[in-house]
Amino acid sequence: MTKDKSRRKFLRDALGGVSAVALGAQLYSSVPAQNKVSRSHGTVRSAEPSIRFAIHGGAGTILRNQMSAAREKEYRDALTQALMIGYGILKKGGPGLDAVEATIRFMEDSPLFNAGKGAVFTSAGTNELDSSIMDGKTLKAGAVAGLKHIKNPISLARLVMEKSKHVMMVSDGAEAFAKEQGVELVPASYFYTEDRWKALQREKAAEEEKNKAPKEKKPLKAHASLPEHEYGTVGAVALDQGGNIAAGTSTGGISNKKWGRVGDSPIIGAGTYANNRTCGVSATGDGEYFIRSVVAHDLSALLEYKGLSLKEAADVVIEKVDKLGGKGGLITIDKDGHLAMSFSTSGMYRGHVGADGQPIIEIYKD
Amino acid sequence: MTKDKSRRKFLRDALGGVSAVALGAQLYSSVPAQNKVSRSHGTVRSAEPSIRFAIHGGAGTILRNQMSAAREKEYRDALTQALMIGYGILKKGGPGLDAVEATIRFMEDSPLFNAGKGAVFTSAGTNELDSSIMDGKTLKAGAVAGLKHIKNPISLARLVMEKSKHVMMVSDGAEAFAKEQGVELVPASYFYTEDRWKALQREKAAEEEKNKAPKEKKPLKAHASLPEHEYGTVGAVALDQGGNIAAGTSTGGISNKKWGRVGDSPIIGAGTYANNRTCGVSATGDGEYFIRSVVAHDLSALLEYKGLSLKEAADVVIEKVDKLGGKGGLITIDKDGHLAMSFSTSGMYRGHVGADGQPIIEIYKD
Repeated sequence: MTKDKSRRKFLRDALGGVSAVALGAQLYSSVPAQNKVSRSHGTVRSAEPSIRFAIHGGAGTILRNQMSAAREKEYRDALTQALMIGYGILKKGGPGLDAVEATIRFMEDSPLFNAGKGAVFTSAGTNELDSSIMDGKTLKAGAVAGLKHIKNPISLARLVMEKSKHVMMVSDGAEAFAKEQGVELVPASYFYTEDRWKALQREKAAEEEKNKAPKEKKPLKAHASLPEHEYGTVGAVALDQGGNIAAGTSTGGISNKKWGRVGDSPIIGAGTYANNRTCGVSATGDGEYFIRSVVAHDLSALLEYKGLSLKEAADVVIEKVDKLGGKGGLITIDKDGHLAMSFSTSGMYRGHVGADGQPIIEIYKD
Repeated sequence: MTKDKSRRKFLRDALGGVSAVALGAQLYSSVPAQNKVSRSHGTVRSAEPSIRFAIHGGAGTILRNQMSAAREKEYRDALTQALMIGYGILKKGGPGLDAVEATIRFMEDSPLFNAGKGAVFTSAGTNELDSSIMDGKTLKAGAVAGLKHIKNPISLARLVMEKSKHVMMVSDGAEAFAKEQGVELVPASYFYTEDRWKALQREKAAEEEKNKAPKEKKPLKAHASLPEHEYGTVGAVALDQGGNIAAGTSTGGISNKKWGRVGDSPIIGAGTYANNRTCGVSATGDGEYFIRSVVAHDLSALLEYKGLSLKEAADVVIEKVDKLGGKGGLITIDKDGHLAMSFSTSGMYRGHVGADGQPIIEIYKD
C-alpha cells in the first residue's frame, strides 16, 4: 500500500471509529494548518504561524503479518484521536505544553498503550508508572517515577514542574505530593487489563522454565530484544504558534520488572528533552540504553554544536543506541518546524500532522 | 596564602591528622605520579602512564571567615584521605571505577559530607540517599535513588550497573535488590548525626515562622541560595592507566526535602557522566537546575561536538546553570588528562593530585 492510499484508508477508518465532534472540524479544516517555514533563515514567513505536532505510541517488534486488520484499526483510531487532540490545541493558539499533556492523557487512558490504564505489570503484579514533561522556553521540567495510584502521570509531572520547586519526585513521596495538589488517586485495580496480566503470567512461566533448565554461567546480558508487548511507551512533541517547543513521555516501563526499575521516560535528557534553541524529543525503547546514551539531549547537542540536520541527528543517536545493543525510536521536532522520526525496531506507532493539516499515522518501518 | 604555602600547610595538617599507614606511602612516593601527556596528539608519551584523579565534597556558601581552623582541618584531612585512597588504586594500575567507588565510600562513611553517614534529613526525619556511577569505556551506568537503609549507595549503584540489566532502581525496590545481592542493610538510625538533625529542626522552625507570617501570593520560586549545610554532595572522577574514565556521585539530597524529591546526583547525564571519547564529570549544587541543564552530558558534548577545551566547557555549563538561577559546581577530567573544576558558589570542597603526585586540597574560591 502506498503512503497516500494508506492515509486515505486511515482517514476512512478514523472517521468511522471516532467522534466526529472531536475530530471532524479539525480533520477537514480548509486552511492549511502550517506551511513549513525555516525560522532560522527568516527570509520567508508564512501567513499562518508554523505549528507542528507529533506523537508516538511505542517502538518494537510490530510486524504487519502478525497484526489483524481489526487490531490495526484500533491503533490507528486511537493514534488519530490522540494526535488531533493536541493538534487542535495548537491550531487554536494553545501552548505546546497543553497539547503534549492533553494528548498523552488520552493515550494514558487507552488500554492500547503501555502507559496509564494500559501499563504493564511489575514482577510483583503491581503497576509502576513513570513520566516526564519539559518546557523548551524556560527549560523547566517535571518528572515522576514509581507511581502506583496516579491515573495520569503526565499531569502529575506537569504539576511537579509548575507547582513545586523540584524536577523529579518518586514513589510514595510523589503520590503524597499528588494528594496535596488535589489529584485524585485511583486504586491499584484501575490499572488491571487482561492483556497485560496474561503477558505477565506468560513471562513468569517462561522465567520459571528457564530457571528449571541447567544453569549456564553466562554474564548477565541486557534484554536485546524485548517482546512486543513490553513496548508501548507514549510521547508527544509540539511546536506552538509562539515558537515554543514542549515534549513529554509516559510509560508503564517493562513487563515483569523488579527492584523499582526506572527507565528513560522520566529522565530529562534521556527519554524527554525540549529546548527552544534546538528541538523537542520523546523517546521509546530499551530504556537502559537510552539513559546511557543520554539520547534526547545528545540529539539536541548534535543540532546546536555540530550543525547536523534534525534527521541526521535523530539517525545518529538511534544508531549509537543500536551499537550499544539497544533498540527503540524517537520523535523530534526542531525550532524551524522540521520533523524526524527515527527507530531501529520493525515498527513504531507514530503520527504527525502534514502540511495540509491532515493526520498521518504510521506503524511499520516500510 | 600562596598555593604552595597552602599545600605545605595542608600536608603538615594531613599528616598530623590521618593514619600514616593509609597515607604516608602514597603521599611521599618518589616517582612523579603522572606527566601530563596529550593523548590526542600522541607524539609525546610519558614513561609513566598518565593517571588523573579528582574529588569534590560539595559546593556552597563556604566562607573563610566563618570556618574555624579546627573545622577546616577536619575537612582537609578527610578530603586528603579520600583523595589518596582512589589515587593509590590508580597508581597501582587499578581501574578508575574502583578508585571512584573506594573514595566515595570513604566520604559516605564520613559525617562531614552530605552522603551516606552524614546525609541530611528529609522533612519526615528520614534520610533518603541517591547515587550513580558510570564507566566511560562501556558507557555502562548504575543509579539508585530514595535509599533509606544502604550504608554505601555508591556501591549499590555499581552493583546495579554490574549485576543487573538495569541502570536505575529506586526506593524499596532498590533495597530489595541490595538484599538479593547480599548487601547489608543498616537501620535508619545509622544515619543519625546531631548536626544534620539540628539543621532540620532549624529549618522546620523557620518554615513554621514563615507560615505564620501573612501570606504573600508570590509565584513559587526555586531555592536560589541553599544554606551551607544543604550542600555536601560528594563525587569523584578518575582516568586510569588504561585510559579509562570513570565518574561517580553520592548525596543525601537537600535538607527538609519532601515528596520523594530526587536531584541530579543519580541522573546519568546531569550529575554524573563518563565517556572515554570525551571526559568524566561529577556535579554538585542546586540539583533541579543541573537536571534541566543536563550539565554533565552537555559538558561532554561541548568537547566532542564544539571542540571547546575542558576548562571552557566546564565554565560554560556552570554559567548556563547560573543563568537559569542555580548555583553549584563540578569536577571533570578529560581523556587527555586535563582537569577542570568550575563552580559558581563561594566555595567547593575539592581535591586532586598534582603532577608531582602530591595532593592539592582547596575549599574557597580565592
